[in-house]
Amino acid sequence: MKIKIDAQDSQTGARATTFKTAHGLIKTPVFIPVGSLGTVKTLSPDDLKKIHVQIILGNTYHLYLKPGMDVLYNAGGLHRFIGWDKPILTDSGGFQVYSLTDLRKVTKDGVWFKSHWDGSKHFFSPEKVVDLQRQIGSDIVMVLDYCIANPSNKIDANRASQLTIEWARKSRDHFLETNSLYGFNQYQFGIVQGGIYSDLRYKNMENLLEIHFDGYAIGGLAVGESHKVRNEIIKVCTQYLAQDRIRYLMGVGTPPDVLDAVEKGVDMFDCVIPTRNARNGTIFTQYGKLVIRNSTYRNDDNPVDDQCECYTCRNFSRAYIRHLFNVNEVLGLRLATIHNLYFYMNLLSKTRDAIIKSKFTEWKNNFLYLYQSEK
Amino acid sequence: MKIKIDAQDSQTGARATTFKTAHGLIKTPVFIPVGSLGTVKTLSPDDLKKIHVQIILGNTYHLYLKPGMDVLYNAGGLHRFIGWDKPILTDSGGFQVYSLTDLRKVTKDGVWFKSHWDGSKHFFSPEKVVDLQRQIGSDIVMVLDYCIANPSNKIDANRASQLTIEWARKSRDHFLETNSLYGFNQYQFGIVQGGIYSDLRYKNMENLLEIHFDGYAIGGLAVGESHKVRNEIIKVCTQYLAQDRIRYLMGVGTPPDVLDAVEKGVDMFDCVIPTRNARNGTIFTQYGKLVIRNSTYRNDDNPVDDQCECYTCRNFSRAYIRHLFNVNEVLGLRLATIHNLYFYMNLLSKTRDAIIKSKFTEWKNNFLYLYQSEK
Repeated sequence: MKIKIDAQDSQTGARATTFKTAHGLIKTPVFIPVGSLGTVKTLSPDDLKKIHVQIILGNTYHLYLKPGMDVLYNAGGLHRFIGWDKPILTDSGGFQVYSLTDLRKVTKDGVWFKSHWDGSKHFFSPEKVVDLQRQIGSDIVMVLDYCIANPSNKIDANRASQLTIEWARKSRDHFLETNSLYGFNQYQFGIVQGGIYSDLRYKNMENLLEIHFDGYAIGGLAVGESHKVRNEIIKVCTQYLAQDRIRYLMGVGTPPDVLDAVEKGVDMFDCVIPTRNARNGTIFTQYGKLVIRNSTYRNDDNPVDDQCECYTCRNFSRAYIRHLFNVNEVLGLRLATIHNLYFYMNLLSKTRDAIIKSKFTEWKNNFLYLYQSEK
Repeated sequence: MKIKIDAQDSQTGARATTFKTAHGLIKTPVFIPVGSLGTVKTLSPDDLKKIHVQIILGNTYHLYLKPGMDVLYNAGGLHRFIGWDKPILTDSGGFQVYSLTDLRKVTKDGVWFKSHWDGSKHFFSPEKVVDLQRQIGSDIVMVLDYCIANPSNKIDANRASQLTIEWARKSRDHFLETNSLYGFNQYQFGIVQGGIYSDLRYKNMENLLEIHFDGYAIGGLAVGESHKVRNEIIKVCTQYLAQDRIRYLMGVGTPPDVLDAVEKGVDMFDCVIPTRNARNGTIFTQYGKLVIRNSTYRNDDNPVDDQCECYTCRNFSRAYIRHLFNVNEVLGLRLATIHNLYFYMNLLSKTRDAIIKSKFTEWKNNFLYLYQSEK
């Protein structure tokens, strides 16, 4: 996978790149909305296109359990099943096996787990997870990684990190031995593990880079570590990861988190924060977060964010959205989700513009000044 | 309110009419989707326009409790609050006071009730309900009627019917003494009561017609009576109600119910059936109803209805919609609602076309033949 570096900030690691997938170009820095089960919660593909979403994320663990691989294969892959013709990245399910399932047994060959739906027993190997993502037909396939609890001691972190590398080798071999099922090209990304230990991260990256993936993700963060530790690890990883490959920070984060990571050279993000917060009635604005159920907004005729041009802000008042949440109407969830994702899309697109115009630091500081002013 | 009779079927009572409201023309027969709380559940105004909805229904009881009249007045009325610039009809809340509230005390002046949200005590008089609908700013205002249980004996039905008439007189007087608050014209409809007793219905209509409302609704049906009884009462009412006024059958019904009532001369309908059924996964097709959770549809690549041109049918398979219901994703509720309402809009629009082309009976029989073929 070739990437074009459109701009590299002279003062920081921030950069703007473009790369091509079978379902279209992606311009970075880019944020990937989470649609684990084949839908970004509350939104249709039309909604996503209107807010300029470039790529969405599906989840192998979730899709394997429901609707099941036979359904996706019969439909001609996930794109056709869900009516989305732009890029899709699928996470391997390593994190879900770790976070959602009861019984879990890790062997050198893979991991046994019980379905969170019905308790049925399943086994994921690195090779099987490649096969599943061939059946899903995602544009970017993630390797099966071994996730550990945070905090974990260095011995555990080291063991997990080593197993992740072994699995990564098997994953890459199997990926290169197999073909796409639907006639278009897929890419495969490796995942850096190593917990909160810089030396383990270095070692892990060294091994991973030898395998030559199409891109590299930083995994195992945003699981309870401090901001300081997280930033340190991101710095370590972005300094060492290949310049000519996409760097994808998994599961991060808030708008300031995202800008911090862009500054260090991260290109790609996914996170449930904008969508999950929306469904809880927490809405992002240029002045910080806003809890829409608050009685302050009972008679507030203004849009959520007066600078925003999303469908929600162009058509509805805070008072109306508050009302929808107050009476549990699902339209409220959708309007809030549309706005929050638009906010993130806009944040990343403006960040890209600033990088290209050599004004990243100025833009970041201005954004944070306003965003944190009312907190 | 003047109506234009575009066509009158020669064999049946079926007719096509057009009338004008401050927010646009309405062409009948017409079906009104229910949006009690200021949203047709799961849909945005954009969605409603795309499926050619002409008019939606709000509910005075619900809107009075939440968001509250101060909020609606501050927003400049319900249209502006919810971002819907087409016609709105508001029900008076008589039925909700009867069906939703615990404590209820009817006096000659009105009805005391307790809020189903918090148990707070409130009083609705015929005059107050007019005032509330002035604040809501609906295009069509309904009078407060007195609803009774079914079955009710004739003495109770007669008393309720008489009180409904007294309230109707007060409602009309108060309506004519007051003005619209937002600079556009509103209409007021009376409601025929009288239970399942034809003679009470006649007497009730006689009194109601003397009051000269802008239109007339048939109330107190679809509350558990048999189809035979309901059809008899609809026949009685449509034969006697003024030819030059709209006849609105409240709370009805299934597609065959609607066609039966159109045949007798009903112009307007509202019902929760298409929207509530959608949210339960019951979907209307030209071949009858379909329960989308059924495992039959697990790998069914066809749209819900292969003749349908709604957003749902043009873009998604039965298998995908089944999956969304199976994993409790709200997009499923919206896609099913879009389809069911489109089905109803299409049903009524084709019915209107058939009436205009003098082919109502043929169209009705053909529709029912297909619709009931797979039951």
